[in-house]
This record gives sequence, structure tokens and C-alpha cells, in this order.
Amino acid sequence: VGVDPHGSMLERWGLSDDLAGLHGFCQTAVEAFADRVAVLKPQSAFFERFGSAGIAELESLIRHSRAAGALVLLDVKRGDIGSTSQAYAQAYLAPGSPLYADAITVSPYLGLGALTPIFEQAGTHGGGVFVLARTSNPDGRVVQLARTTDGRSVAQTVVDGVAQLNQGVQPLGSMGLVIGATAGQLGGDGHSSGDAHAQAIEERLELGTLNGPVLAPGMGTQGGTTEDLRRLFAGLTGRVLPSYSREILAHGPSRTALRAAAEKVGESCQIALQSAGM
Amino acid sequence: VGVDPHGSMLERWGLSDDLAGLHGFCQTAVEAFADRVAVLKPQSAFFERFGSAGIAELESLIRHSRAAGALVLLDVKRGDIGSTSQAYAQAYLAPGSPLYADAITVSPYLGLGALTPIFEQAGTHGGGVFVLARTSNPDGRVVQLARTTDGRSVAQTVVDGVAQLNQGVQPLGSMGLVIGATAGQLGGDGHSSGDAHAQAIEERLELGTLNGPVLAPGMGTQGGTTEDLRRLFAGLTGRVLPSYSREILAHGPSRTALRAAAEKVGESCQIALQSAGM
Repeated sequence: VGVDPHGSMLERWGLSDDLAGLHGFCQTAVEAFADRVAVLKPQSAFFERFGSAGIAELESLIRHSRAAGALVLLDVKRGDIGSTSQAYAQAYLAPGSPLYADAITVSPYLGLGALTPIFEQAGTHGGGVFVLARTSNPDGRVVQLARTTDGRSVAQTVVDGVAQLNQGVQPLGSMGLVIGATAGQLGGDGHSSGDAHAQAIEERLELGTLNGPVLAPGMGTQGGTTEDLRRLFAGLTGRVLPSYSREILAHGPSRTALRAAAEKVGESCQIALQSAGM
Repeated sequence: VGVDPHGSMLERWGLSDDLAGLHGFCQTAVEAFADRVAVLKPQSAFFERFGSAGIAELESLIRHSRAAGALVLLDVKRGDIGSTSQAYAQAYLAPGSPLYADAITVSPYLGLGALTPIFEQAGTHGGGVFVLARTSNPDGRVVQLARTTDGRSVAQTVVDGVAQLNQGVQPLGSMGLVIGATAGQLGGDGHSSGDAHAQAIEERLELGTLNGPVLAPGMGTQGGTTEDLRRLFAGLTGRVLPSYSREILAHGPSRTALRAAAEKVGESCQIALQSAGM
């Protein structure tokens, strides 16, 4: 479940778009989800807009969620080089850090190698890292589908690089990918034209050697369906983490309704993934 | 001047690698630079590793630096989509936000279009945005020099997209680029082999229509020289912002020595840029 306290969602829950509202939102989210949802995925941006006081709320959310048994995947999409990457690794993946989470998302525009300190920190302490490969927004195509000198797409080089990090790790490596659930989605009525079909094939990522988890955001309100999961991730048994935010959060602030919504999408994902041998 | 309070620099200044050390470092940096350096560039990662308390220190650094007359370019390299991009825009470019800065760096892995809310927020309030185009680390090549369907490099599409945002703005647009000072640097003894020469040409970005500023990090200790500025940015009169961190910070904690070091690199950059008609 994505924990995205944006202004309009706070308003929808009858909360003010300020620190007090943020606090109420987080308290409800922890109570509704933390003891029954596998992974909570807070989006850092919505906390950063309140500065240090918002970050203090994020620290508290992470701590309470982990204490209640959930894993916390912090969506920060950080990415930098050298000593700066090292500092991000310390901030988010070093036990004892105020923002210590089970896993984070990272962005590879500076190259996968630049993120080495983050992978190493995660490896040392059993943390996870999810690298942006192919995102669900159409704007992502230009960068992510550009061709490298050996003809692979940028997204495929990210996949292959992460696969290499996971090589030989049993039963599953901890370095993962972010692949938007709507990536390469055929538009319109579902009858693919030749062009759209060719495009979908062109965009298909080879995930066979990944040996790691895949975070699939963009589910539900943002357009991703369980059919997309089947289409994109067939064969990745037990490795796909579909992420829903608004689809579930829209049922708040009732804890009962939030739980029911989370349970419902959880079940439908499970059915879809199992029926596809995933 | 880059304000990078990493652990080894705190130690070098005789400070502890904790909140108290961070506080001392920031106080000295403000006193040494804020009333005489054009732009301070704090690196967010080094504050994030101390969680909310570190971010409170960053807020204070930004506030005091701006009050003393410096512009603050906050190096955060954020990048996301939709409402999340909007939240980052609010966090860093909305007047009244605790982390309000004059400009920020952003990362375009999700496409330039995904950053639209950030460009719009900057445009509304006279803020600046510096988009990663070509970074100074070798690992950046795979993504940044990949070819898009029309044959341009990814970095060049970033340049062209930002140029479009600045089109027609007088005297200069506020959307900028990050181009590492060592990008496309010819290695070794300076005698370029045919291969290295071809590579440097292949990597050359067309910046002619940019009509915006360029941040050139990686200067000094990290390998960038004033010769690189001339080579990479000839003709960009008054638009290049060379950024030094360790080269200057290594002279601390003496305020006098820090000022002298900043003045010295400032003068050498000015001479180099002027002699190249920049």
C-alpha cells in the first residue's frame, strides 16, 4: 500500500493540509495497515513539503509500521555519485539512522555504477533497493527506451545490471526493479493495431535472469490492472509487488474501509498472479 | 561553493560526525561564505543522513544564507511524476515552505515532461531549476549518451527540452542544466588519440539555443579545471556556474582561509571564462 499524503487526499479524509493533518493521516494509515499489509510504501515527497517537521512524521511512520510488523519501502528515488550516494545509503539503509527503512527506490540517471554504495549498504544489512527501470508515465519513454551502444534499451541495461547484482544469491536477491504496471500498455480498445503491437514488443523487458523482486506501481486509479501484471511479469513467481495508493486511500479515513479495500486488491492480485504461475 | 558536510570533512575540521558537528560546520560555512559568494550549493544527502534533525539544520542553513545575500541552489536531484513532482515543487520552490530555496537540481530519468510541475512552480515564483544532462562520472555514459529514436543522445534531448522552456525569455531563462566539468574530458597526457578525439566529439552537446544557466560541478579536487570550462562552454557568456566543494572546504575550519580559497578559485574561473568570451 502506497502511503501518499498529498493535499487532496488529506482534504478527502477531512483533514487539514498541514502538519496536524499529516499526523492524523499517518496515524490512521499505521492503524489500518501496519499489522496486516506486507509492505507500506510512503512517498517521501509528501513529507518533505513540510520540511523537518514532515520528516519527523515520516520517521515516526516508519518506526511504527516496522514495529507493527510491516516492511517499509521508502519511495525516495534518490540517485547521485560517490560520497553523496554513500550519504544516501547511510540515511536510509543504515540501522540506527532516524530514517532507516527496509528498502528504498533509487534512480539510475547517473548510471547504475554510481549507486554502488547504496547496493553495498543494502547488502551488508539485509536491506532492499528498487531501481527505476521502466516507469508508467509516457514521458519516461525518451530516456528509458533510448538505445545504448550495444543496442539494448536503457531500461534493459538497468535490468541486466541489477540481475548481475543478484546473481547466485539464494533464494532471491534483494536488488529489485521498478517497472510501472502500465509500461507498454496497449492503448484504446484492446485491439492492438500492428504499430501498437510492434511497440509493445519493442518495449518488452527481458526479466528472466533478474533473480530479484519487482515493484509495480501505478496500479488501480493510475491505470494499472491485474491483467497488466499477467502481461508484464508472467513467470516471475512470487517476485512481483503490485503497489496501490489512491485506489485504497480513497476509502479513508475509516480504518475498517481502508482495511477492506487493501484486502480486496490484495486478493485480486493474488488470484491474477497465481493464475499466471506467478 | 558546494556545502557538503560529509563525515570525513567534519573530521578534518575537528568536528564530530553528528548533529553538533553538522551544526558547527553550517555555522562556519554561513559566516565564511554567505555574504560574499554568489551561490551556496548545499548537498541534501549529507543532511538527510541525520533525519529530521539534519533537515532542520538544512532549513537553518538556507535561511541564514539567503538572509546574508547569497542565492541557495539546493542539490537534491529529485525527480518523479504527477502529484509527487508537484509535492517536490511545493517542498523546495514554494515561498513559505521550510525548505524554500532559490533553485534546485532535478533528475530526468522519468522524462522531462514529468518534471513540469517543478518548472511551473519555479516559473511562477522566479525560482531556478537545474536538470541533470551530462554528469562528470564515467558511469553516467550508458544512460546519458544512449540514442533516442531520432538519433540524439539522451543528454541532448534534455538540453533541447530545457532550451524550449527558456525560449524567448529575456534576458535569460531560469531553467538550467547540470553538465559535469569533466564530461567528455580527454584522458591521459592531453594528446588525444583518434578514438578519444572521436569520442569527445560524439559527446559534445549543442548548447547554442539553451538561453539558460549551466551548473558545472566536479571542479577542483574532483578533476574539473578552468581549461575544461573553456573547452565545454565556450560562447556561453555569463551563464556558467562552476561549483567547487572539497577544493575550498579542505581549507576549513578557518573562516579566513575558507574565504581566501573561495576568492582564489573565483578569480581563476573569472579569468578563464572571460578569456574564452564567457
